[in-house]
Amino acid sequence: MGKKKHTRISDYSGWYNEIVDKAGLAEHSAVRGCMVIKPYGFAIWEKMKDALDKMFKETGHQNAYFPLFVPKSLFEAEEKNAEGFAKECAVVTHYRLKNDPENPGKLMVDPAAKLTEELVVRPTSEAIIWSTYKGWIHSYRDLPILVNQWANVVRWEMRTRLFLRTAEFLWQEGHTAHATRQEAWEETRQMLEIYADFAENFMATPVIRGTKTPSERFAGAEETLTIEALMQDGKALQSGTSHFLGQNFAKAFDVKFANKEGKDEYVWATSWGVSTRLMGALIMTHSDDNGLVLPPKLAPIHAVVIPVYKNKEQLEAIRAKMEPLRTALHAQGFTVKLDDDDTRRPGWKFAEYEMKGVPVRIAVGPRDLENNTAEVVRRDTGEKQSIPLDNLAGHVAELMDEIQTNLFNRALKFREEKIRNVDSYEEFMSVIEEGGFFMAHWDGTAETEQKIKEETKATIRCIPYTDQKEAGKCMVTGAPSKERVVFARAY
Amino acid sequence: MGKKKHTRISDYSGWYNEIVDKAGLAEHSAVRGCMVIKPYGFAIWEKMKDALDKMFKETGHQNAYFPLFVPKSLFEAEEKNAEGFAKECAVVTHYRLKNDPENPGKLMVDPAAKLTEELVVRPTSEAIIWSTYKGWIHSYRDLPILVNQWANVVRWEMRTRLFLRTAEFLWQEGHTAHATRQEAWEETRQMLEIYADFAENFMATPVIRGTKTPSERFAGAEETLTIEALMQDGKALQSGTSHFLGQNFAKAFDVKFANKEGKDEYVWATSWGVSTRLMGALIMTHSDDNGLVLPPKLAPIHAVVIPVYKNKEQLEAIRAKMEPLRTALHAQGFTVKLDDDDTRRPGWKFAEYEMKGVPVRIAVGPRDLENNTAEVVRRDTGEKQSIPLDNLAGHVAELMDEIQTNLFNRALKFREEKIRNVDSYEEFMSVIEEGGFFMAHWDGTAETEQKIKEETKATIRCIPYTDQKEAGKCMVTGAPSKERVVFARAY
Repeated sequence: MGKKKHTRISDYSGWYNEIVDKAGLAEHSAVRGCMVIKPYGFAIWEKMKDALDKMFKETGHQNAYFPLFVPKSLFEAEEKNAEGFAKECAVVTHYRLKNDPENPGKLMVDPAAKLTEELVVRPTSEAIIWSTYKGWIHSYRDLPILVNQWANVVRWEMRTRLFLRTAEFLWQEGHTAHATRQEAWEETRQMLEIYADFAENFMATPVIRGTKTPSERFAGAEETLTIEALMQDGKALQSGTSHFLGQNFAKAFDVKFANKEGKDEYVWATSWGVSTRLMGALIMTHSDDNGLVLPPKLAPIHAVVIPVYKNKEQLEAIRAKMEPLRTALHAQGFTVKLDDDDTRRPGWKFAEYEMKGVPVRIAVGPRDLENNTAEVVRRDTGEKQSIPLDNLAGHVAELMDEIQTNLFNRALKFREEKIRNVDSYEEFMSVIEEGGFFMAHWDGTAETEQKIKEETKATIRCIPYTDQKEAGKCMVTGAPSKERVVFARAY
Repeated sequence: MGKKKHTRISDYSGWYNEIVDKAGLAEHSAVRGCMVIKPYGFAIWEKMKDALDKMFKETGHQNAYFPLFVPKSLFEAEEKNAEGFAKECAVVTHYRLKNDPENPGKLMVDPAAKLTEELVVRPTSEAIIWSTYKGWIHSYRDLPILVNQWANVVRWEMRTRLFLRTAEFLWQEGHTAHATRQEAWEETRQMLEIYADFAENFMATPVIRGTKTPSERFAGAEETLTIEALMQDGKALQSGTSHFLGQNFAKAFDVKFANKEGKDEYVWATSWGVSTRLMGALIMTHSDDNGLVLPPKLAPIHAVVIPVYKNKEQLEAIRAKMEPLRTALHAQGFTVKLDDDDTRRPGWKFAEYEMKGVPVRIAVGPRDLENNTAEVVRRDTGEKQSIPLDNLAGHVAELMDEIQTNLFNRALKFREEKIRNVDSYEEFMSVIEEGGFFMAHWDGTAETEQKIKEETKATIRCIPYTDQKEAGKCMVTGAPSKERVVFARAY
């Protein structure tokens, strides 16, 4: 484990890639655009999954599983949705390989095994799911359907970045069906709140909640709600979206239900998702120039014990003294790892676990044993303390709360410093380079939005939820505006 | 919820399909050969996943995620493996759709977006994983690698059956890398034991452990170990396999490590997997003519309370009386559902939860309340008892153990009755139709194995692990045989 080469200032993108690599989170694969999520990275993703899955189930959702493939004819049924994803679809056209007669030992696609209808690898599953729901929904008694699936999806991307933009990624997609517009709306908003709650209370990442403009909507949605986080380079990262789909998919797939009066009505729909992109948000929100920094609630290892010893007896003495710590913390749901790998020196291990973002490092040597203490270092602040062994478990458990809170507060402070009102387009163009969220007036037209995007690379991240709507004039056209919207450059 | 139409005797296959349908486990999708796993079926699969995942982690394995796609050139690297799967591969050839100029509103594959190298949708992941391990393994210090992934895989099947044989299915695949042959062997055997433990102690499904014959081996393995279960129609179901891959994949992908002496050696490998096929095994081991029967350890709902009431007051009184039961059982990890759906009658609910295999049904009406009792019915035996409310939680908790044990013992008894020694091919041909496991002598040749398969549709399920090897003569050729092997017709 060498020192990090890149800092956030010197090369932000290199800094990110280096953490993903050196902390053992993910790597590029032999398949263009697809990543390998390595065990440590996957362990963090599993923590995210578990927390979200619990929240979904507590709000009445159930998991299910729908096919990977979508027949082209179903895929094209909801036109806007199809149009939105057609350009980035992996397409299965054949179902067999055969020996290549011209290249012994090599295989070729068997032309005799051409599918009569091509299959799209799901970029999202509204089409296949709504074609299924048609068979599930007949009467109001069949509603609501509150289903989620954890799955892989494929969107062909030309320029990929680990976690942030990959051809294949992992996600969850909720797909719900309701009898009324209002109920579907409540679901859409509820799921956005769950995402915001998860981002803030597990990821320790503050987010702005709001509504997407029509041009940034999910293809096929009537309204898209979003949570937007701010990364340390001042760019926004869309971290979760919840879509009110109206009756678009019900109409495309002819899904009706008999209401209590026996009259047929189209079903109302929502869909909502978060993906392995959240890993990117997590990394970029908290990490520093020494590596990854993890909030305790998502850390696969909460505390690492690094024994400093000269011989086996010393190691065994340390292990014995540390066992009560492990037991006590384990009982509170924390994972403690004692790293007794003989092939690495303590200094190497210090750097390794710092790179991996383990919230607390505990070093214990013979002198500590004599004094009945251990050296405890917080990953978030680097603060070092000598703690009596008797208090160690309690101290470490408290640190978990403190670190979780500190990370959120630090990220919140950073974001607050990086939000500002901007009132003229001239000012906007001069400050956009600095990064951050810019609250500005916009005339509500797609043309102005497009012009700003072309000229500044900034997009409207959302029309934020706020109680304090302040009217004004569009910074570009001067036309009246009801409220400020959030601009930023984004991932 | 109507009565079941099919019984095991009248139409075994129809009986199976009807349970999968009416218990809400899965259904065919709009994609040929792919299934939709419905919420209740998926909840059972999640219980399986959780239990297995815990066992994997307790033995030091970590989860990771590798790409869905395998470039053709990697896929063909290990020739036997490629040959084994080439005929059933879904192949991605294009990465974009475009508007079909001749059919407005329709899409077509964009010929300009043809991939230079086709991508195989993984039928299994040895190739992509070993091409990745090449980058992970340099020295003995990088070993062992103990990695598992939960994923979807695709094997194009012409004749599909829900859970048992589908084009896409869910599974886990472990892929481990070791410094020595012995360590890889120990891993191969350990994982088979974990599968057997899971089958017997969670699924309550007794299994025979053994080794596959060369012709039944996984393509690319040196040895395949298997657990084989017996279904109620007397057919075998291969329920999990663990492969010793030797150095085949290390050689195909040139994966070497420097040993402690600094000398390069090829890495030793194992892989092992179980799939949603286990759902089929679970259904067919225990279910009866009234529907699904679930062992408590894999039941999403352990006990259902069905209130029998005439008005809201009665319902509320029942609910209040049942709350302590829910709380007490919940604290022990059991899920209790009170079904207060007003649109269904109690009789309908009785049939519904019987069909769904809920281990215990509790009915409570006004007279029960007066007597301070509830009517408790076991799903496995149909036994009905009136139980005082004071003892109810304890009684139901005990029933869970009893039902779990009873299901295993019942299945074991069935299997023991269906195992028999057969000493002549004539006898074999006359009894094979009855179903069951037949222990017979075989001369060890692929020719004889093939002849038996062609003439009787029976295959060698495994060469069983046993301490009592008894030599004899092949029932077909009379050539010497060291031990009896297990024959059966199989799914």
